[in-house]
Amino acid sequence: MPEEYYEDLYEEIDELTEEKNYSKIRSILSDMAATDVALLFERFSAEKYTLLFRILPKEFAAECFVEMDTDMQRALVEAFSDAELGYVVDKLFIDDTVDIIEEMPSGIVKRILAQATPEKRSMINQLLHYPKDSAGSIMTTEFVELKPDMLVSEAFCRIRETGLKKETVYTCYVTDSERRLIGVVTVKDMILGGDAAAVGELMETSIISVNTHDDKEDVARSMDKYDFLAIPVVDNENRLVGIVTFDDAMDVISEEDTEDIERMAAILPSDKPYLKTSIFETWKKRIPWLLLLMISATFTGQIISGFEDRLAAVSVLIAYIPMLMDTGGNSGSQSSVTVIRGLSLGEISFSDFFRVLWRELRVSVLCGVTLAAANFVKLILIDRIAFGNTELSYAAITTVCLTLVATVIISKLVGASLPMLAEKIGFDPAVMASPFITTVVDALSLLIYFRFATMILNT
Amino acid sequence: MPEEYYEDLYEEIDELTEEKNYSKIRSILSDMAATDVALLFERFSAEKYTLLFRILPKEFAAECFVEMDTDMQRALVEAFSDAELGYVVDKLFIDDTVDIIEEMPSGIVKRILAQATPEKRSMINQLLHYPKDSAGSIMTTEFVELKPDMLVSEAFCRIRETGLKKETVYTCYVTDSERRLIGVVTVKDMILGGDAAAVGELMETSIISVNTHDDKEDVARSMDKYDFLAIPVVDNENRLVGIVTFDDAMDVISEEDTEDIERMAAILPSDKPYLKTSIFETWKKRIPWLLLLMISATFTGQIISGFEDRLAAVSVLIAYIPMLMDTGGNSGSQSSVTVIRGLSLGEISFSDFFRVLWRELRVSVLCGVTLAAANFVKLILIDRIAFGNTELSYAAITTVCLTLVATVIISKLVGASLPMLAEKIGFDPAVMASPFITTVVDALSLLIYFRFATMILNT
Repeated sequence: MPEEYYEDLYEEIDELTEEKNYSKIRSILSDMAATDVALLFERFSAEKYTLLFRILPKEFAAECFVEMDTDMQRALVEAFSDAELGYVVDKLFIDDTVDIIEEMPSGIVKRILAQATPEKRSMINQLLHYPKDSAGSIMTTEFVELKPDMLVSEAFCRIRETGLKKETVYTCYVTDSERRLIGVVTVKDMILGGDAAAVGELMETSIISVNTHDDKEDVARSMDKYDFLAIPVVDNENRLVGIVTFDDAMDVISEEDTEDIERMAAILPSDKPYLKTSIFETWKKRIPWLLLLMISATFTGQIISGFEDRLAAVSVLIAYIPMLMDTGGNSGSQSSVTVIRGLSLGEISFSDFFRVLWRELRVSVLCGVTLAAANFVKLILIDRIAFGNTELSYAAITTVCLTLVATVIISKLVGASLPMLAEKIGFDPAVMASPFITTVVDALSLLIYFRFATMILNT
Repeated sequence: MPEEYYEDLYEEIDELTEEKNYSKIRSILSDMAATDVALLFERFSAEKYTLLFRILPKEFAAECFVEMDTDMQRALVEAFSDAELGYVVDKLFIDDTVDIIEEMPSGIVKRILAQATPEKRSMINQLLHYPKDSAGSIMTTEFVELKPDMLVSEAFCRIRETGLKKETVYTCYVTDSERRLIGVVTVKDMILGGDAAAVGELMETSIISVNTHDDKEDVARSMDKYDFLAIPVVDNENRLVGIVTFDDAMDVISEEDTEDIERMAAILPSDKPYLKTSIFETWKKRIPWLLLLMISATFTGQIISGFEDRLAAVSVLIAYIPMLMDTGGNSGSQSSVTVIRGLSLGEISFSDFFRVLWRELRVSVLCGVTLAAANFVKLILIDRIAFGNTELSYAAITTVCLTLVATVIISKLVGASLPMLAEKIGFDPAVMASPFITTVVDALSLLIYFRFATMILNT
């Protein structure tokens, strides 16, 4: 929804609040999507949105609560009576409750757990124990479980009895007497099969499932690959313990992409939207890499210092340092970012190491030669003829162009191999992106430049 | 699935092919997911996978066909008899057919269209006319349409009659006599409502829909935001013309993120996986930005040349050029990438321009001061005392540190504002990322450096 939509609505609701026309407010808000109500509430003060929240129909209020950000949820929980809190907790899905609990201070967590039924409390506690970023941490324990000898009509009765509280009913899971997963059946198959068919005949028995300890990004990417609405999560004994649904998988993909992008820009990943992060927190996410890269860039400075005397003799070479460093950095980034994305989408793995290097070698030769040719023409036509820079000898031009080719080749090889090596030793490859590669490549390109200068210009 | 899984399977199937044990092959392949069969086939020669494809059960063969890459699809279509092609085309969903047609040479397109039923052909032609990247281009016209006066039992009959050919049956669309969308009803609501309830009572009438010409990325992001399984697509008269399903939305999100990441690394976006792109194509995607950025970096060189004589006087300053340029580039990238990601997730819009700049200003002052302080300590303790570099006067140290603060502030402001301005004038903000920002910031940081040097050192 566009910005103006919320703005207009904000004014309307604000006016109605002044007039105490609560029934009108209730009817407007009830017609909106829960996500939009949560976004709208952000525009109000804590006092006002607490009032508005209490006007909402109870069931819908719980839906809106899930969509709110942590600060707003906390303010509401603090304002709630125990009865109000109990009602909301009762309506939440287990996985949403766990997500909320993970962000709340311990005092509020205690109040939330106290309001949950003993059964729900034990499920919450179980989910809280799975490692961060594991399939277990994003799964829900609310799914429809069927037995193979049920008829479709019985299965539908079962869904009708329990389905309202289940996160998805469209994929149902068939288990044996020991709760081991033996099949999956979709509601579509059951509708097409008709009331009299048995679940066991309709179910699909070649099942793709994941383990509770699998990485949540891998789980989400495979749901994307197989177009699954939900994927079953089993423990080490193949007992069904939960499911991951497509909406959580979409969130994981979007979050993981944001994290990769942040890491590639030398920012420590943050899980809050930019405009909601405090200035100090933003600083904390950005300064570590800036400091580290600043220190490493001083080595590049040392290289220049080491050649200072010789540079003074052929000072025309200094002017091409930024061009060589930047082109090297850009070439390296292109390769590293391509490889990082390939790794995270699962298109490339470490076993492709030499295949990737061989590709990059050929691409880098093509790129290096093209850039050197363009640069050669530019140095002759513009720098020498148009600007009459006679200090720029053919030997100097050769030095610049040869350095360019060598720098591009080395940058691309370094850029492509570092992320794969990082992945191999268990680091996040996204860290090996532009800023890091640039720093490494800057030093390398200068060393090459000065080496060529010494050889060709005898300085 | 891990690499070894496909490798082992490849060997097994290859052996069975030699032995002509086709029934065993058929039973192994039929138990696999269509996506995995497509990935497995990539390991075989065209001749072999055409043979294997013909062994598959016909219905399943069509599912596998959709999952294959364009080259393989083309090879298969060329090998198909008209009857075989007709069977596959008949089993494909409309949106998948359109995707395949868009990638095929015109000779094959004609053969595919000739095999489609007249009704299907007209739908394909209609979908082919929507602009690239529009909601119309990714929607499917196969959805279940209901009328408000139908009972749930009638609706289920309707799904049973037509549902097998519909891409999703879980969200059904209720239209009036002029096919205008008046409500949405889920299969879950219908199961819970029971056979005797009317569709009109169960349906949700506050509908979120999109227009055929809306941008597909916006559509996918709002499906993610609202956790929708499918979203209805209407024309300008609010007539229902199609739906976009969650699996296509997940693909769009993943593709758009890849595109953004590629643009941020100065690569022209490509829609093929890295290892399947030819060397020449990879070169074509990378060289334009490298050339452009190389040319612009020469301006930075001009700035150095302009100050060459003065630099020769205080040559100690040269050694800090890479550190200043890199730190400026990194600081600017952090801000630009944060803003680009915020824009593409819809967390930031142009109306936040001044709010963003004010945040970046405060963050940049914090970062700049921290970096300058660390650098000050390093220059004194390491460069002056440990390395005994007495040429490095306190005036020179002050110049370096003040430049650092100014560079970081300016880089962050430039980095944050360029993407927003690009978005405002209709450019893709992702282009304003690291490489572009680095080039701009390099020049700025040198100008600041030399200005401070002139003022403080009187060179």
